[in-house]
Amino acid sequence: MRFYYFEMVGTAVFAITGVLAVTRRGLDVFGALVLGIVTALGGGTVRDLIIGAPPFWISDFNYVSAASAGALAAFWIGSLFRDAYRGLLYLDALGAALFAITAANKVLSLNLSAPVAVTMGILTGIGGGLIRDVLAGRPTLLMSREIYATPILMGCVAFVLLYGATPPVPYAAAIGFTIIFGVRALAIYRHLEMPAWLTHRDRSDGDR
Amino acid sequence: MRFYYFEMVGTAVFAITGVLAVTRRGLDVFGALVLGIVTALGGGTVRDLIIGAPPFWISDFNYVSAASAGALAAFWIGSLFRDAYRGLLYLDALGAALFAITAANKVLSLNLSAPVAVTMGILTGIGGGLIRDVLAGRPTLLMSREIYATPILMGCVAFVLLYGATPPVPYAAAIGFTIIFGVRALAIYRHLEMPAWLTHRDRSDGDR
Amino acid sequence: MRFYYFEMVGTAVFAITGVLAVTRRGLDVFGALVLGIVTALGGGTVRDLIIGAPPFWISDFNYVSAASAGALAAFWIGSLFRDAYRGLLYLDALGAALFAITAANKVLSLNLSAPVAVTMGILTGIGGGLIRDVLAGRPTLLMSREIYATPILMGCVAFVLLYGATPPVPYAAAIGFTIIFGVRALAIYRHLEMPAWLTHRDRSDGDR
Repeated sequence: MRFYYFEMVGTAVFAITGVLAVTRRGLDVFGALVLGIVTALGGGTVRDLIIGAPPFWISDFNYVSAASAGALAAFWIGSLFRDAYRGLLYLDALGAALFAITAANKVLSLNLSAPVAVTMGILTGIGGGLIRDVLAGRPTLLMSREIYATPILMGCVAFVLLYGATPPVPYAAAIGFTIIFGVRALAIYRHLEMPAWLTHRDRSDGDR
Repeated sequence: MRFYYFEMVGTAVFAITGVLAVTRRGLDVFGALVLGIVTALGGGTVRDLIIGAPPFWISDFNYVSAASAGALAAFWIGSLFRDAYRGLLYLDALGAALFAITAANKVLSLNLSAPVAVTMGILTGIGGGLIRDVLAGRPTLLMSREIYATPILMGCVAFVLLYGATPPVPYAAAIGFTIIFGVRALAIYRHLEMPAWLTHRDRSDGDR
Repeated sequence: MRFYYFEMVGTAVFAITGVLAVTRRGLDVFGALVLGIVTALGGGTVRDLIIGAPPFWISDFNYVSAASAGALAAFWIGSLFRDAYRGLLYLDALGAALFAITAANKVLSLNLSAPVAVTMGILTGIGGGLIRDVLAGRPTLLMSREIYATPILMGCVAFVLLYGATPPVPYAAAIGFTIIFGVRALAIYRHLEMPAWLTHRDRSDGDR
C-alpha cells in the first residue's frame, strides 16, 4: 500500500511550506535546502530510527531529490508560492494526512502495537516541522494554538481501530486519511484555533 | 533488576514536572501531552537508539500511558501541583536517580564499557529535559547553574566503580541511587548553585 | 583509511571551538563539557544512527576523552584560545574536512549510494554544531551567511565522483579534503559571506 507519486508530491510540498515558513528571516540557499529537507524527511527519519527500520530515503534517494527540488523552488520563486500560501496549506494538509497514515500502516505491518502506530503517525506528521522550527529558532507548533496535530491524532486512531477489522486495510486508510485532511482543512478554512479552555495562558497575557 | 512500579511513578512525575515547567507560557492540551511524554521518555529513547536497543516503550506502552496521565494531570489540575512544586522537585530527583542507575545498569549488562555507562546514565537523566526545553523555546539546563547533572555524574561513577566489585549489583545500585538523590535533594533544600569559579559569566553580566 | 591521531586532534579542536562559541554566555563546567562533547561527536553519532552503524565512540571511548579534554581546556584556559581564535578556525576547518570525507568514505564502504554519502558528509561536518547551537539557544549556522557547509558540499561531491574512478581512494580523499579546507580557509581569510543574491532577507532588514 504505497502511493509513490503522491508521496513525492507530498514530500516536495512539505519542503516548500517548510522553507516558506522561514524565508522571511535571513536565510541562504544552503540553509533553505537543509531546512526544506529536514521538514520533509525529519519526522519519517525519527520514526524509522525508533521502530528499527532503515530510514526510508537511504535506499531511495528520490525522496531527498523531491525535497531538494521543493526547497530550491521555494527559495528562488517563493514569492509566487507566497501568493498561493493558503492553497499550499491545503496541500500540506494532504501531505500530513498521507504521511501519518503511511507511518501508522508501516508500524502495524511490523506487528508493533496500535498505540505505537498512533504515536508514530503523529511523530511523522509533525516531527519534521518541529525540527525545522528548532533549527530556525522559531517557536514550535507545540507552543501555538494551531489545530495541526489533533486531526492527525483523530485520523490515526480511526485507522488503527479499523485496521484488521471488517473493512480491508485500504478502506481503513482512506477513512483515516479523510478524517485528517477534512478536520485540518476545516481548521484552515475557518481559521480555527484550539479553544481557550484547552489552552493555558500566562496571567499576564501580554508577555509573549 | 527492574523496579517496575517505581519506574511508572517516576515516568509520571517526570511528565508532571515537564509540563509544569512550561505551562506558564501559552500551551494547549496537545502540546502539553507531547512535552510531557518527551520529558519523561526522551532521554531513555536516545539512550536506546545509541546502544542499539529497541526503545523501551515500544514493547510496553505503559510508559507512554504513565507519561500521558502525568502530562494531562499537570495540564488540568496543575495549580494543585504548583502549590506542591518543591515537593515535586524531590520526587523528580528520585526519578532522575532511578532512571540514571537503571540506564547505567542496562548499558553494563550489554557488556559496554563503564565510561559509556556513565555517559548514558547522564543522558537518560537529563536528555528528556533538554529536548523539552528546546521544543518549548526555553534556555536549557546547560545554560543555568542549577545542580542537576553533577549528582547524576557522581552517582553513576560510584555505581560503575562498584559494579562487579565486592558488593552485589543491587547494593552498588542502591549506593549510586542514594548519592544522586542525596546530593540533588541537598541542592534543592539549600538552594545551591554551581559555585562561581565553575561558571563563566559574560563580563557584561546584565545582558541575559 | 583512518587517520586516528588526526581524528583525535580534530575531535578536541571541535570541542574547543564548540565551547568557545558559547562561553561568552553564562555556562558552568558541566554545561561546557556536554556542549563540547555534543559539538565534537554529535554529527557523527546522528550519521551512524541513520546508516545503522553503532556510534563510533561506543567501542572507542578515546573520542569522548579527546572531546572532554578539549572542552575542559576551553573552559579553564579559554582566554588563551580566544587570542588565537582565528587560528582555531583554520584547525576547525581541517577537522570539518577530515570528518566529512571520513563520513562519506564510511557510507560508500557500506555500499550505500553516492548521494547518501554526500548527505552524510555534510551532516557529520555541521550536525554537531547545529545541536550545540540549539542546546545553547544560539541562532544556528543555517540562519547565518557564513560559508561553512558549501565547501563541505563541494568536497564531498568531488570525493564521491572520484571514488571508484581512475585515482585510488586515498587520492580521491585527498582531493575532497583539499577542496573543503581550501575553500573554507579562503572564506575565513577573506571574511567571505554568502553573496546577497543567494540570501533572503526580510524587507525590513533591521528586525534581526
